[in-house]
Amino acid sequence: MVKRAENEQPQKAFGWAARDPSGILSTFHFSRRHEIVGFVTAVGSSVHKFKVGDRVGVGVIVGSCQTCDICEQSLENYFPNVILTYNSTEPDGTNTYGGYFDMIVVHQRFALHFLENLPSDAGAPLLCAGITVYSPMKYYGMNELGKHLGVVGLGRLGHIVMKIGKAFGLKVNVISTFPKKEDEAITKLGVDAFVFSSDPAKLKAVVNTMDYIIDTIAAVHPLTPLLSLLKIDSKLITVGLPEKPLELLVFPLVLGRKLVGGSDIGGTKATQEMLDFCAKHNITADIELISVASINMAMEGLAKSDVKL
Amino acid sequence: MVKRAENEQPQKAFGWAARDPSGILSTFHFSRRHEIVGFVTAVGSSVHKFKVGDRVGVGVIVGSCQTCDICEQSLENYFPNVILTYNSTEPDGTNTYGGYFDMIVVHQRFALHFLENLPSDAGAPLLCAGITVYSPMKYYGMNELGKHLGVVGLGRLGHIVMKIGKAFGLKVNVISTFPKKEDEAITKLGVDAFVFSSDPAKLKAVVNTMDYIIDTIAAVHPLTPLLSLLKIDSKLITVGLPEKPLELLVFPLVLGRKLVGGSDIGGTKATQEMLDFCAKHNITADIELISVASINMAMEGLAKSDVKL
Repeated sequence: MVKRAENEQPQKAFGWAARDPSGILSTFHFSRRHEIVGFVTAVGSSVHKFKVGDRVGVGVIVGSCQTCDICEQSLENYFPNVILTYNSTEPDGTNTYGGYFDMIVVHQRFALHFLENLPSDAGAPLLCAGITVYSPMKYYGMNELGKHLGVVGLGRLGHIVMKIGKAFGLKVNVISTFPKKEDEAITKLGVDAFVFSSDPAKLKAVVNTMDYIIDTIAAVHPLTPLLSLLKIDSKLITVGLPEKPLELLVFPLVLGRKLVGGSDIGGTKATQEMLDFCAKHNITADIELISVASINMAMEGLAKSDVKL
Repeated sequence: MVKRAENEQPQKAFGWAARDPSGILSTFHFSRRHEIVGFVTAVGSSVHKFKVGDRVGVGVIVGSCQTCDICEQSLENYFPNVILTYNSTEPDGTNTYGGYFDMIVVHQRFALHFLENLPSDAGAPLLCAGITVYSPMKYYGMNELGKHLGVVGLGRLGHIVMKIGKAFGLKVNVISTFPKKEDEAITKLGVDAFVFSSDPAKLKAVVNTMDYIIDTIAAVHPLTPLLSLLKIDSKLITVGLPEKPLELLVFPLVLGRKLVGGSDIGGTKATQEMLDFCAKHNITADIELISVASINMAMEGLAKSDVKL
């Protein structure tokens, strides 16, 4: 049994949490953690990065060793014993309870500056969805002006890829099985084309035209048709996490020198870079703001994928 | 029907060919093509790259448009209508008959210099196996001094990967399902360790230790155990061509920012670079030299995989 250290923490927090298998959230008093974008209320004596009153965000990560090779490169997200903001355990046995709370205590390394023009509400999801897609676009070099990006899936991740892709100066195509999303993609998100991927003729028209694909689909789906859309020397990066294996036909990889890669959120340095990039280009997430009283209805909608994006 | 233009060619050749479905090779007179490493006997008036008497090799490719973007980058191997040295058809309808002949006529672009210390016999396979593995090692940056390379399969391709890997200054491990090959790998090829991949304990000992893997297996095989051997930010490149899809579990790609890529032989520029690299490092293929009279026995052995490597 790990030691439950909540009550030993000096900061008392109030929030909403699912406390039994029903998943229904109710009010919850505990120690330490709080809302994920907010203002600094106190700093420790060694803190140089922030002062009281600064607006900051906390992403998916609240702890890592900070000394190993991986952490030195600010790849804390790949540190094997990384402490996530939710459902993790700190070395002292404290649980991490996520962000549905009124306060959080966090090491300065894991707090990020929010520039003035980045709103707290529509900026907050960038701390997860934004870095999840920005990080691979930078790491795999998917940001060369004028190149052609395909985005598979127009959801929580996909709509941010499109905005970041346009800010990089890419030609952006959406690849989706939902034709009803075409209007939103073209008129609202300003993408260059919508490819209805269940229609072989529509897919065929864009075969061998794309330089990069970001695949946001979390369900099992065929890779071969997507790989056919790529030119030679190009890449498909998946940020979804299908639980079962995908079928990977090796021929298209070999015959076109293509690659399939993955990427998982991002480190603190990349996350700050992403927030500043989004602030500069006025990129925010499309959100539906709800009152905390509607939280259980919203969670239910989320479970049923009954959300706008 | 394509026009058969052999008899219109001025150069007459003599060789060995399988001329019916039995696959038995017999003597064959035709026009144009010849042995794959040899001496230049004549050059055209525009040829500047070679003179009569030069020793040259011809690889897998004998034709491409030479003008498009892909050819401009010397990626003729990825040119969609590339003309291969065997079983291809030239624009004039001529068949390409491979290299079991006493002569060949080829555009200077597709002939490569053989430096003096590179033997014709043990150097010839480098034109296929050598470039197949050298090209991805360069393209994917798998040549950084001191890094750890895993080579899956110790055959026609695998043994060349090991030699090239050692010449790049890599730590090289063989990953194989044939424990009887351990001695050959260690004592003859000088690899650093042999990993018997059917033993989970042997695999576990090298989990998370490798920077690169070259996978030479042409049969369907599991990728997940191989991906577990890689550190974060690392890559598995396949040069084998399993006909059926492999199972690709996305989790290891995402959680370790790993990639699976492919690569197919190489262009003329890379092939010349590889030949010069091999000459400099005294790298040749391990071969079994046979007389042409034994050619059918050898083909039979090849079909049964009854060859030394």
